[in-house]
Formats: sequence, structure tokens, C-alpha cells
Amino acid sequence: MPYSEVNVTIFQQLRNIVGGAYIHDSATQKAIYGKDKTEDLVFLPEVVVLPKNTAEISQIMQLCYQENIPVTPRGAGTGLAGGALPVCGGLVLSLERLNRILELDEANLQVTTEPGVITEVLQNEVAARGLYYPPDPASRGSAFIGGNVATNAGGPRAVKYGVVKDYVLNLEVVLADGSIIWTAANTLKNSTGYNLTQLMVGSEGTLGIITKIVLKLIPAPSHSLLMLVSFSSAMKACAAVSAIFRVGIVPSCLEFMERQAIDLAKNYLQDKTIQVKENTAAQLIIEVDGNHLDSLYEDCEKINQVLETFDCDEVLFADDEATKNSLWKLRRNLNYAVKDYSAVKKADTVVPRAALPQLLEGIHHIGQKHGIRAVNYGHAGDGNLHVTLLKEDLSEAHWNREMPLAMLAIFELVAHLKGTISGEHGIGWIQKEYLKLVFSPIEISLMRAIKTSFDSKNILNPNKIFN
Amino acid sequence: MPYSEVNVTIFQQLRNIVGGAYIHDSATQKAIYGKDKTEDLVFLPEVVVLPKNTAEISQIMQLCYQENIPVTPRGAGTGLAGGALPVCGGLVLSLERLNRILELDEANLQVTTEPGVITEVLQNEVAARGLYYPPDPASRGSAFIGGNVATNAGGPRAVKYGVVKDYVLNLEVVLADGSIIWTAANTLKNSTGYNLTQLMVGSEGTLGIITKIVLKLIPAPSHSLLMLVSFSSAMKACAAVSAIFRVGIVPSCLEFMERQAIDLAKNYLQDKTIQVKENTAAQLIIEVDGNHLDSLYEDCEKINQVLETFDCDEVLFADDEATKNSLWKLRRNLNYAVKDYSAVKKADTVVPRAALPQLLEGIHHIGQKHGIRAVNYGHAGDGNLHVTLLKEDLSEAHWNREMPLAMLAIFELVAHLKGTISGEHGIGWIQKEYLKLVFSPIEISLMRAIKTSFDSKNILNPNKIFN
Repeated sequence: MPYSEVNVTIFQQLRNIVGGAYIHDSATQKAIYGKDKTEDLVFLPEVVVLPKNTAEISQIMQLCYQENIPVTPRGAGTGLAGGALPVCGGLVLSLERLNRILELDEANLQVTTEPGVITEVLQNEVAARGLYYPPDPASRGSAFIGGNVATNAGGPRAVKYGVVKDYVLNLEVVLADGSIIWTAANTLKNSTGYNLTQLMVGSEGTLGIITKIVLKLIPAPSHSLLMLVSFSSAMKACAAVSAIFRVGIVPSCLEFMERQAIDLAKNYLQDKTIQVKENTAAQLIIEVDGNHLDSLYEDCEKINQVLETFDCDEVLFADDEATKNSLWKLRRNLNYAVKDYSAVKKADTVVPRAALPQLLEGIHHIGQKHGIRAVNYGHAGDGNLHVTLLKEDLSEAHWNREMPLAMLAIFELVAHLKGTISGEHGIGWIQKEYLKLVFSPIEISLMRAIKTSFDSKNILNPNKIFN
Repeated sequence: MPYSEVNVTIFQQLRNIVGGAYIHDSATQKAIYGKDKTEDLVFLPEVVVLPKNTAEISQIMQLCYQENIPVTPRGAGTGLAGGALPVCGGLVLSLERLNRILELDEANLQVTTEPGVITEVLQNEVAARGLYYPPDPASRGSAFIGGNVATNAGGPRAVKYGVVKDYVLNLEVVLADGSIIWTAANTLKNSTGYNLTQLMVGSEGTLGIITKIVLKLIPAPSHSLLMLVSFSSAMKACAAVSAIFRVGIVPSCLEFMERQAIDLAKNYLQDKTIQVKENTAAQLIIEVDGNHLDSLYEDCEKINQVLETFDCDEVLFADDEATKNSLWKLRRNLNYAVKDYSAVKKADTVVPRAALPQLLEGIHHIGQKHGIRAVNYGHAGDGNLHVTLLKEDLSEAHWNREMPLAMLAIFELVAHLKGTISGEHGIGWIQKEYLKLVFSPIEISLMRAIKTSFDSKNILNPNKIFN
């Protein structure tokens, strides 16, 4: 069934729900809400609504359900897979005004928050009470916690502490028809019916609009130590990753950067104090954390012994904040550096971590074959490698012909290595054609059937994840 | 649509699939497979099949789908909620012959196993390589890992390490129509489509038959220390639980036993060496683990300081295996002791852990009101309290009248405290009437819609979880 347009009557009804100050249809506003951080894609919505609370969202959905109008929920618009793009027009429903932390329950180590709270704000708020919410995607300074839940975001600490899904206990959700549900209970254990919570996490706004989030917190570790380790072989750096776990240590971060990535970040920062040796082919950033500093020094010593067996070169060490920040500096600026340097195409590949060397080698092989340079970095401890294909000064014709072929070949390799096509960014709009590489038609039809059970009119973020 | 019977033709077709030695319809066999560990409930299947592998299960399901015959998958039959009872007749499909550990991937810290492997066997196998699969339900010596996945089992170590769902990466599943799917990839991170893995975990055999399981493993901690702490007030013991986390320590076990439970276990064991002081109202078992023994001693000291502020009485300490086992002895025998003592009705309540004192007080109040003694013990660190109502020498009439009212009141209290009706046992057959206390009609109808998407003919473990 074709969608209806947002006509004058419907616009007025929406305006009555949210108030005149919180509904936009100017060209300027539509342009702002028509894009996220995914390449240069733009899809203009017909109207942008900024509801204040669950009740307003429920009313909006009742109306759109009745009138058959598509609704694209939007967090901070920091997504990298086009999940927040209103590809079918209709409404963009921004969650930015649902921006309150509702309850910080110190007795139970839980926080209840609205979805429009910036992740870093939430982290700082709980940190002020000695508590810890570990998932820290690179965009944590601007991304909303609701978007993190919708994409099952990760970040560097996932290797020890898990991803967003491991912290979500319970969700309030507005369904396509405006019904309001809670997915579970505020408990650490739950074997009561199907896990609607985990079905919502990572569903990218296609099953419902998340309006309240109950997160598990943990006590904050009091100490951490950091190592920045250079290798003359990128393959050996990758191989060292698995070996560290085999001596019984789970680092709190284990990040990988290739030489090309290091150079891009160096050039971007123009920071002469950062020295990288000529023969460095890759670096690992390794962090350990806990409550007992002596134990952490012992862990670093043990890690060092492992690294030596993989011919590591220089090992820089940090136990104070300033030095830690300097060792993190290149890694933290990589996203900006890459984007600043060239038009790019990114992929969020993930494989079993021991397959990283094969993945890395394969990516460069594919890049050479298609005449496109690839830059790789990411969360090596999880096997989560962010691949960036660089357009540089390639012709449009070459790029438009070869880039999709290279991307397909990379995802085929990932599937072959028992990995998958997104570790933490989501499928959204731009990856969905690759879904069939990692899921069979039956598996995809099951997902589609779930979508239909939740949203029979297909009005919630339509045309995302699968066609 | 009414189900078909297993007639001679269908029996012969099933026999052709599994072989004559692996299909049973004798009264003896039907009686064995007609019950699990749930009270004294018995539902006889028409036939019991013991397939060898995924292919045979797929063929069985194709046949049953076509012929409209209900199929109840069964692990080791150790369930406490009647999940494995063939309440609609038809087939019991036992997974006992799918009992191989298929691959222990030491490089990626993963194990791929068939569902019919006994949990403890799996734990020992991975422990022999220095690895750790933490979830350890009380039945781990006899329960199958597949049943653990189907119920999202927990156990005492969940407080630090999480439950089964936190270790399942990927599942091979045979669907109602015989289709074979994999739910995800063998990766630690995954933001690729809906989380079919977590939908299967805890779905109690109603959505598909789990035939292969890929589990995440972690490095085994090398040391642990144990404390058995007596309190003269059960409420203060409960209150101490939350306080331990607030000093930054996450114990690897935090178990609670009331005096009544302690006495039952003591009488059952008839072990004169176990001394419990007259004024002891409750005990906590507290374990810490890690790789650095000195740090663990420091943690115990810190915990001790917390406990003193809650008027703890005696603190027994163990750092060797023999003493640890002696401190665990009462707790480990509680399930048997309770069952040996009286006819019982059990509930697997879970609340936010700071609500434990309220839950405990409420349960005794309810017990008094209905003239039924309640015994409480469980995983206090998770807020997961196993409640046992004791029939003792109550008349059948009193028990049959008052017990259901008491149980209902307990679950209503649990819902009021923002908890839920099963933490780790599942809903199965016996808890489903209470589901409406914690889920609204809309929430339950969503679950039912998911069930229909997976199993339109309702042949997979029908009449479980919801009506």
C-alpha cells in the first residue's frame, strides 16, 4: 500500500500534538534532518516533529498508523549506516527533547534514562557516583544513548565489558500503532517469555520507538594502565591479539591501527611530538583496568612477554592521564583524519578475532585488485575491523565501478571467515544489499516476519535492514 | 486446527528416519519421557524419538509439520517449569544423542557444541584448556547445555559473569517446518539484523529446536576465596548484599540462605561437623575470584568491613578446596533437602537486588496469612530468590486452597517490586497463568505474534509460556 502524504490536515493534527514550536517543514530544517553521518546521503522528510515525551510519541504514532505515513525515529544523527535517513519521506521523529536521566538507582546499580541523552553525559553522570557504563562508541560525545541502543553500539571497551546489549535490562517502547510497552523487568536475570528487550536492541527503529531505557551499571574500576605497541609486521600485530587472551588476560581495550591509518592521523593532527618509527607497520593500543594497581602492572608485564614473541618493536607505557591521552591521540582522531583526507567508503567488518590476519591480508589483496587503497583500524580484541576504502585522486568512473566490487569482495571474505557485515554500526540503508551474504533467504524471511508482527503497515523506518 | 495422532503410517515414517532402536512407544518409555523435575506432573507422549543429528531432526519436523503433530523438544529433563512436558501429546524429541562437543576453538575462545552435552562435562572440557564457561545452574551435573540455552539458565556465578544468554554467540536451529537456520555469526560483536540468537535463548523450545550452539568462553580465573557469613537478622543479610557492590566489588557468587533452609539442609545431611549458632537467622556465601591472590585477600577484607556495618556475626573463611566445599555443603544440598522434607511448590522470583529485604518480609507475611511455611534461598547478588512453599503436614484441602493464593500473592509482590516471575527456570507449563502479572495483553500478544511467525501451525512445544 502506498504511503499517504502529510497533508495540511495531518500537519495541523501533528502540530496540535507537539505544539507549533516543535514541528518543522522549512527547507532548512528538512535539510538538517534529512542527513546523518553516512557519506553524503540526503533524503528529505516531509515534516520534522520533536515530541516531548512518550505520550506525545504515542499520539503521533496513532495518527501515522491510521493515516499510513512513514516515521523515521532519529537520535543525534551520528549513524554511519543511514539508519536515521527518511528514505520514504514522511516524518522524521527526533528524540532530542527526551533528554533527561530519570533515575540513578545507586542501590541497584541501574540508571533509567530517556533516549535523547548524550552517551558521554550519561557516562559522566554515573561516573560521578563511582559507577560505570562501559559502552563508549567513538561518537559518544554527540551520539544519543537511544541511538546506541537502536544500533547495539560497541566501542573499544567491548572487548572486556561487552556492547550495549549487555547493559540493557528493560525498555519502554512505542509501537507502530501507538501502543506503549515495556519489554522486560528491571532485573539482572530474566527467563520470563521471549526476550523482547534484545529484539529491540539493534533493530534500528524498525520495530518500535524506544522512549525509556533501563541500563545495568557496574562499579567503576579505580585504575588503568595503557600500552602503545609498535610492530614491524601488521600480521604479527594481529596475531598477537589472540595470544594475549590465551595467557589469561582480558584487556579493557585492544585497538589496532595500520601504518596507513597512523600516517593519516599524524598528517591530520600536524603534531610533531608524535614520533612513529620508519619500520612501524602497525600499532596496538592495549589497556588493562581494575581495582588493584599492582595486579595491573603484573598483567602488563605478562602482556609484554607475549608481545615479544610476536617481534614487537617499541612499547610505550602510560600510567598517568596526560600520557594516556597522548598515546590515544592518533586512534581517537582516526575517524576525522580519514574523512578529512579523502572521500571514503567505510565497512564495519567483524570476524572471530583469530581470523584478523587473514582478513587484513585479504582486504589489501582486494584493494590492489581493484586499484583502491584500503586503510584499516579498529577494535582488534573483538575482531571488529573498520575498513575504509579511500577514493583519493581516483576518477569518478574508476571509483564508481571498482569500489562496489571491492566492497562486495570484502564482505564475501568476511562471511567466508565466519564473520559478519556489521559489528556495531548497523545495517540501516547502505548495507542491506549485503545482508544476503551472511543470512539465508529463510533467515531473512524470519526477520521480515518479525517486522510484520510488530509493524504490519510497515510505517516504522521502512526500507531499512532488509528490502 | 486439532492435532493429528501418530498413526501406524507416521510411526513407520519416523522409524525410517531415526532407525528402530531410536523410537519408543512402550508404556515404560512414555512414562520416562512424560515427566521432568517439575513437581509430580506427568503427560504421556504418543511416541519418543531420539534423532542423531540435525538432518534427522529436520526430516522429523518436515513430517510433523505436514501431518500437524505436536513436537516437544527435550534435553535432560531437569527443568522445573514443565517446559519439556508433552502436554498436547504427539512426539517427545529427545536431544540426548546430539552429545558431542564439536570444536573447542582455543584461538578464539569459543566452543561449538551439540545441545545434548551435560553442562558440567562441557565446563570440565574447556577447563582442561584453562578456559571458563561460567553459567552453572544447580543441575549442571545432569542438565544439558541445550536445555540451559532454552531456559536461559543462570546459577550462582551469574552475579559476576552473567547468564547463559551472555555466552551464546550463534545457534543452529531447526524450525517448525524442518528448515535449518543459523541465528548469527561466530563473532563477539554483531549489529547485523534482528537478534535471532537472543530470541531463541529462553524461548523454551517453542520457536525452534536448537541443534548446535556456539558459546563464548573466557580465560579461567586462577584463584578464588570464599566466605560463609552468619547474621542474626535475615533482613540485614539481604541489605548487606547491595552494600558490597557499592564499595566497588563484584563477587563471583553471592548466595543467601534463610535459617529454615539451613536447618532443612542440616537435617537432610545429618552432618554433625556443620555447626550453626542458635541466633543465626540467615547466611551469605560470598566468593571472589581473579588472577591475583593478594588482590582477592584485599577484597575480602573490604567486604568484611561492609558486613560488620550490617551486624554480621560469624565469618568463616576458605582458601583451600576442602574448606570451600565444606562451606558450600549446605547450599549445594538445599534443593535435595527441601524436596526430601516435604511436598513443595517452588517459585523462581527475581527483583532488583535492593528490593530483596522487602521481598523476603513480604513472602513470610503472605505465608503466615495463608498458613503455609515458606523457605527462601537463592542468588542474592542477582536478586534471584528461590521461594519454596512447604506442604508439611497441611491437609490436602488447606494446601490446594491456600497454596495457589499464596503463590499468586508472591508473584503480585514480585511484580510490584519491579521484578519478574522467573529469573532462570523459565515459564514453561506451570507459570504461564502468572505471565499476565508482569506483561500487559499487548506485550503478550507481541510474543504470540512472534510465535506465530516462527511456527504458524503451533506444533513446537505448544501451550507453553502463554496460552
